[in-house]
Amino acid sequence: MRMVDIILKKREGKELNNEEIRFFVKGFTEGSIPDYQASALAMAIVFKGMNKKEIGILTDAMMHSGDIIDLSSIPGVKVDKHSTGGVGDKTSLAVGPIVAACGVKVAKMSGRGLGHTGGTLDKLESIPGVSISIEGEDFIKQVKDIGIAIIGQTGTLVPCDKKLYALRDVTGTVESIPLIASSIMSKKLASGSDAILLDVKFGSGAFMKTLDDARNLARTMVDIGDELHRDTRACITDMSQPLGLAIGNNLEVIEAINTLNGKGPADFVELCLDGAAIMLMQAGIVKTKEEGEALAKEKIDNGEALEKLCQMVKAQGGDDSYIRHPEKFEVSKNIIEVKATNKGYIKEINALEIGEAAMRLGAGRATIEDVIDPKAGIILNKKVSDYVNIGDTLCVVHTDIDDYDDILEDIKKAYKLSDVEVKKNPIIYEIIQ
Amino acid sequence: MRMVDIILKKREGKELNNEEIRFFVKGFTEGSIPDYQASALAMAIVFKGMNKKEIGILTDAMMHSGDIIDLSSIPGVKVDKHSTGGVGDKTSLAVGPIVAACGVKVAKMSGRGLGHTGGTLDKLESIPGVSISIEGEDFIKQVKDIGIAIIGQTGTLVPCDKKLYALRDVTGTVESIPLIASSIMSKKLASGSDAILLDVKFGSGAFMKTLDDARNLARTMVDIGDELHRDTRACITDMSQPLGLAIGNNLEVIEAINTLNGKGPADFVELCLDGAAIMLMQAGIVKTKEEGEALAKEKIDNGEALEKLCQMVKAQGGDDSYIRHPEKFEVSKNIIEVKATNKGYIKEINALEIGEAAMRLGAGRATIEDVIDPKAGIILNKKVSDYVNIGDTLCVVHTDIDDYDDILEDIKKAYKLSDVEVKKNPIIYEIIQ
Repeated sequence: MRMVDIILKKREGKELNNEEIRFFVKGFTEGSIPDYQASALAMAIVFKGMNKKEIGILTDAMMHSGDIIDLSSIPGVKVDKHSTGGVGDKTSLAVGPIVAACGVKVAKMSGRGLGHTGGTLDKLESIPGVSISIEGEDFIKQVKDIGIAIIGQTGTLVPCDKKLYALRDVTGTVESIPLIASSIMSKKLASGSDAILLDVKFGSGAFMKTLDDARNLARTMVDIGDELHRDTRACITDMSQPLGLAIGNNLEVIEAINTLNGKGPADFVELCLDGAAIMLMQAGIVKTKEEGEALAKEKIDNGEALEKLCQMVKAQGGDDSYIRHPEKFEVSKNIIEVKATNKGYIKEINALEIGEAAMRLGAGRATIEDVIDPKAGIILNKKVSDYVNIGDTLCVVHTDIDDYDDILEDIKKAYKLSDVEVKKNPIIYEIIQ
Repeated sequence: MRMVDIILKKREGKELNNEEIRFFVKGFTEGSIPDYQASALAMAIVFKGMNKKEIGILTDAMMHSGDIIDLSSIPGVKVDKHSTGGVGDKTSLAVGPIVAACGVKVAKMSGRGLGHTGGTLDKLESIPGVSISIEGEDFIKQVKDIGIAIIGQTGTLVPCDKKLYALRDVTGTVESIPLIASSIMSKKLASGSDAILLDVKFGSGAFMKTLDDARNLARTMVDIGDELHRDTRACITDMSQPLGLAIGNNLEVIEAINTLNGKGPADFVELCLDGAAIMLMQAGIVKTKEEGEALAKEKIDNGEALEKLCQMVKAQGGDDSYIRHPEKFEVSKNIIEVKATNKGYIKEINALEIGEAAMRLGAGRATIEDVIDPKAGIILNKKVSDYVNIGDTLCVVHTDIDDYDDILEDIKKAYKLSDVEVKKNPIIYEIIQ
């Protein structure tokens, strides 16, 4: 078999078979197929796509290119949750403890933030003492003991994806539904959970800019789950404005804690309860979404969800007094209110622009080597559809940097006002299963 | 400027500007742009194409990536000829001497054969003593003295193309009109002639399989010539069957000699006279094609064209007695007649299959390292539209190998017969200028 023939076949829009796809994944992972052939194939896939069967095989082959986490020694149904990334997305920090408090086993590997999007690991590490490097048996033991662990990737999971993603990033082949879907799903499947809930975001702050693209990606990933016999469901959710009110690492942890205390912002609470309800259904703990939401709410109201977060933080070496007393979290040197200079209904808070501003304030990384300031970020006072008068506070900026004037200007520009009333977007658009 | 942005721009089907194309060519030639980005760009060009302006810039940038031959010290108009390659294509060996005898300066760099197509250099070298390695000043001097030299590439001509072609060959990005056209034209332009005649072949034995593709490639190359102010014209010619009767290195030299003696096969003679006439017009020696053909014919009839070939062979160290007495050429050990086992009109002599058979007989190279047997090949007795009876000789095989039965079978299979009369194809379909 020759790689050039596989490229030509895809270039002509033909279906690649099992042997061809596995030949590519194996050879590319091992290095016998060079990058320049892989990038040509990726570009051909950009233009000619892949069908359900091809994507299933590609995902399976990538998943098996490295270690596969074996969670079988943990009793109960293990449910994983994955978000395609956004601004202000602290969902795992709230939903994880909620469903764990309901009896779902959460053995989750998360990622770091890059560019305008945050990462769960960075948020977790903003809690003093928390370690995200928990290896093998300790990870399993923690999930057995308290029902939840959120850690960084262990072992060599999907080395093919690591290599292919780095290549796609520099060859203009990132935007391709088959390649994105197989990249995400191969990692989720290799992480060993029994069921997967995907949060596919769309809008200015998300990777997918339109509802159609998000729906297409969600459908493709759910199909991969079907193809590989793993219960996979997806929520398509709004990322046209930041999620909740807090953007920035310890600021988001505090918002998650508030939510587990029954005091979260409306959009974020809705997303958490709905997400938790679906995961509870996937775990077989409840039959309907209504039942699931009720159970989730109960675990918030009776304090068990917050207690679960405390247990997890403690188990991972963190100081859980910060969870019980979030006022203990360190605060930025500069806290500046950004005021409205016009009046009207907020039509847009561009999530991409807010995310990039937060990054520049210290909350994120422009490159993988940058160091994050856990205190930095933005707290929104108003959201889309709210009315503002001149002089009202739009948001509050937290930062240790002193040279922030340009950033404040850019934050202001992220707001678009309207003279006429503006409708709120739903937070969840569709559930695909 | 980032290469990934250039790839993305082309992926979206947008026009690349001057700076972007030159940034790519320079960086790729120097090695600062890696192969994996070049192959991704090539694949994006396969799908999204390039317009006239982009192709002109690409060709100019590639042409300037290495040495440029300066022929300005040679008085008169220098006209180059390039064929896209075929089976039995010995045109340069006849047309070169004809036009040189008419006063055109022919300073030509040729290539070697690979696969089913032959190369002029291999044919020349089948004449005992001929050298194709003539450097710089000696090359110029030969053209000044006798009006013609056909040699291998000297200097570092278009290193960008050399690198890019090798990459395209293994990444499924060869078939792309903008990339093929810029590859050919950058080399022709760097070779320094004032005018270029292109012979774009199509059919089973050619790189272009259809008339439409050939027309498209020819148009694109002529446009490049216009864009870069170099008189460029193209003939679109038939390669559905081998050209002339001889396939194989010294067999084709003998056919070229016969043609210069006024005894060439009809299709080949027609192509030579028409090609010569166009080159004579490009050189400003004649005004019309009819005048050109008459002058070319005159130079054959009065022996000056053959004499010019003798002069060139001698100047390049060869034994010109072989040109005057072609019966001196060495002959293969085995000479086998291939007989018709059916009767009918010949509908097809598949040029690709005949070319591959000739290669296996020893006349060509499967890989660049293979050594050629200059004596090996095939002489056709019949061509398309001829009638054959059972037992008639279809062709005669020349080879030193003894294990030729399978090859003879494959040669037979290249012939398709018909019960009804078959029309001859024209040899030249169109002239594009």
